[in-house]
This record gives sequence, C-alpha cells and structure tokens, in this order.
Amino acid sequence: MSDDAIPQRTPATDDDTFRAAVVDLLGSIAYGELSAFGELASDARDAPTLADRILLSRLAARELAHHERVAARIAELGADPADAMAPFVPALDAYRARTEATTWGERLVKAYVGDGIRTDFYREVAAHVDPDTRVLVEDVLAQAGDRDDALVAGVRAVVDADPAASGRLALWGRRLMGEALSQAQQVIVERDALASMLVGGVDGRGADLAELGRMVTRLGESHAARMARLGLAG
Amino acid sequence: MSDDAIPQRTPATDDDTFRAAVVDLLGSIAYGELSAFGELASDARDAPTLADRILLSRLAARELAHHERVAARIAELGADPADAMAPFVPALDAYRARTEATTWGERLVKAYVGDGIRTDFYREVAAHVDPDTRVLVEDVLAQAGDRDDALVAGVRAVVDADPAASGRLALWGRRLMGEALSQAQQVIVERDALASMLVGGVDGRGADLAELGRMVTRLGESHAARMARLGLAG
Repeated sequence: MSDDAIPQRTPATDDDTFRAAVVDLLGSIAYGELSAFGELASDARDAPTLADRILLSRLAARELAHHERVAARIAELGADPADAMAPFVPALDAYRARTEATTWGERLVKAYVGDGIRTDFYREVAAHVDPDTRVLVEDVLAQAGDRDDALVAGVRAVVDADPAASGRLALWGRRLMGEALSQAQQVIVERDALASMLVGGVDGRGADLAELGRMVTRLGESHAARMARLGLAG
Repeated sequence: MSDDAIPQRTPATDDDTFRAAVVDLLGSIAYGELSAFGELASDARDAPTLADRILLSRLAARELAHHERVAARIAELGADPADAMAPFVPALDAYRARTEATTWGERLVKAYVGDGIRTDFYREVAAHVDPDTRVLVEDVLAQAGDRDDALVAGVRAVVDADPAASGRLALWGRRLMGEALSQAQQVIVERDALASMLVGGVDGRGADLAELGRMVTRLGESHAARMARLGLAG
C-alpha cells in the first residue's frame, strides 16, 4: 500500500470506541485464521500424497500460530478472544461454505489465492489501527513466502498433469475473489465500529470512500499478480 | 514402565537392520501424529463452542509439532519421512475409520483415551531403541499434562449435562482400547524389523513374549486409570 494511506497519527487504545474497533478487527482476523486452520487441515486429509498432506498440515498449523498471537493481543486489550471472534463466524463460515473446493487443484488455489486476498485485505485495514496492533498484524501476515512457493509449485503440477484444469482453476480464482470481496463488505457493513474506523474514522482519520475504492483496486491487482504466478488467467 | 524393561545396552543405529527397525518405529509414530492432527483438527470444526474449537485446534497443532520432531529424527537416520510413514497408513487409517466418533463426547473421549493408549504403547516400545531416539520419543510423548486436564473437564461437562451419556461413553472407551490393541498387533506382525526388535530383538535384547504380555497388562491398567479419571466405567 502507498505510504499516504497511513494516517499521520492514530488514537490510543484507551479510547473506548477506537479500542472496540481494533478488537473487532482483531476478532475478525483471529477467526479468519482459526477458520483457515480448520479448512487447510481438512484439505490436508484429502491430499494425494503424504508429502502434500504434510505441506497443507504445516500451513494449517501456521494459521493457528497466527491465530494465537492475534488472540493474545485481543486479551491484552481487555477483551475475550472468543467473544471478539463470535460476530464474524456467520460471514466467514458462509464464505467457506460457498467456496467449498471439490478437487485437489481447487484446494491448492484456494489456499494460495483465498488466503492471499485475506492477507492483503487485513494489511490494508491495519493502516488504520494503533501502532502496536499494526506491527503485530503486519508481522503475522508477512510470514508467507515459502508457503507460497510450495503452493504455486503444487498448482503448476496439477495443471501440468491435466492442462484442461487450467480454465476451471482460472474461473475458480475469479470466483474466490468475488466471494471474498462480498464477504469483506458484509463484515464491514455489519460492524459499526469497524466501519467507522475504516470510512471516515472514529477520529476522522480512517480512509474515505475514494480511498476504499483505491483499496479494492489494489486488492484486484495483487490478485491478478497471484493468478499470473500460478500460470492461470486472472 | 519398570526400569528392568530397559535393555542394558542397545545396538547402534549404524547397524542396518536395527536402524530399519528404529525408522519403522518412528515412521509409525510420525504417521500416528499426522493422523491425530487431521482427526483433531476435523473434530475441532464440530466443536459446540469457539472455546472448545480452539482447545481441539491447539491439541491438533501440538500433534503436528510432535510429528515434525519425529520426522526430523527419521531424516537424521538417513530415511525419507514420507517413505517411513507409508507402511503404516493403511492400519492407522483403518483404525480411524473403525472408530469414527459421532458425538462431541465421543470425540473428546477419543482424543483423551485413544491418544493416551497410543502414547503408552510408543513409550513402551521406546525402551527398545537407541538412547537418542528414546530420549526424543519420551520427550515428545511427555508433553500432555494440560491438554489432558482440558479434555477431562470437557468429558465431565458432557456427562454432567447428559448423565445418560455416561454408559455410552464407557462402552466407547472400551471399544477404542480393543481397536487400538488390534491395530498395534497388526502393525507389529506386518513389519518384520519392528517385530524382531520387539520380540527377541535384532540383537536378542528385545522384549520376550512374556514381557509383551506384561506390556499389554500395563496398557490396560493405564487405560482403566484414564477411564476412572473421566468418571466412566473402565
């Protein structure tokens, strides 16, 4: 994201309204990680080889480790992690249910593309929180390099073995992007504190609507870059 | 286990036959952990509350961390972890399929009792391997204290809320013990190197048949103690 998207100054987390918004954000991230853990672990059981199973199991465990760090920050802010996550369970579960992968290739693309979109989104949103939380969120979201290499190699192997899969997987990637955006929108509109922080801001320092539009553009560009890396049409 | 079950001296892992037996043992443990990871993570998705879901997700992640350490030891011994695990996939998958839990109480009892039996069994077997491997196996298997407390509390909560569940769960515990023993037996008889190490021993220092009988008795006693701790008939 560009530096000018970062507010000059953020309110402290001793402001109740602002803290509620930060807890909301962290609750949605924490549940996103827990939910990704469950899905990746479940995908792992359907892996065609033990090596693939280990790869996806490791990715799952990493999501849970991230979850733990975010949950610890929620507790530091005086909130209960399970309570903070609860409002986001329906939207995220609905996203997972609407995007249930049926082939190994779809599982790999979803692990790479779906979690990539989620990461980008939260990294954007983290620009609007207090510095301690921002550092945590960016650090948690940054650790995806080697994971990505293995997933990209996995998707490319699927397409090499079955070139006809390429078109279906490209379509699948577009669908994941659409569902993720609609889910993010639903999460934001349903949570007043979160929406206030993002649009206009509790203190008037959040992003404005034009900035939100630019954010969606940036998310789309990152998504296209990921699809290109997979060798799939964006 | 009693100290006299530990051989005075174990062969070095530069003995090919002995190393093959150790790799077999570690392969079966490593797959047991990977398989437990998948099952616990899947159970977690059916948890009645987010707190329960987090508990089982954490247990799953710990199994995977154990898997990683055992897999690293397999690689140290010059073998491929996936190859070492492969022979044990059918028996362990069959065990999981034959003991698929259908209620939350059954899932908790299986997580506690099933993994307890597995841990006891491997701790017994570790008496017959080289010291480095033994230290690793005992260390990996030892870290279950707080996990157990949470599972025991969970099972007791299920029975408190539905006293009629007590009889069904007691029966379930007995069934898990029977299936686990039959699975362990199958693993041993199918793997010559492992069987040689356990009975008679590659170097004549393994357990004899009478010792194996005592081992089964000890496993049964530990199982009864676990069932008692759950407040269930053994």
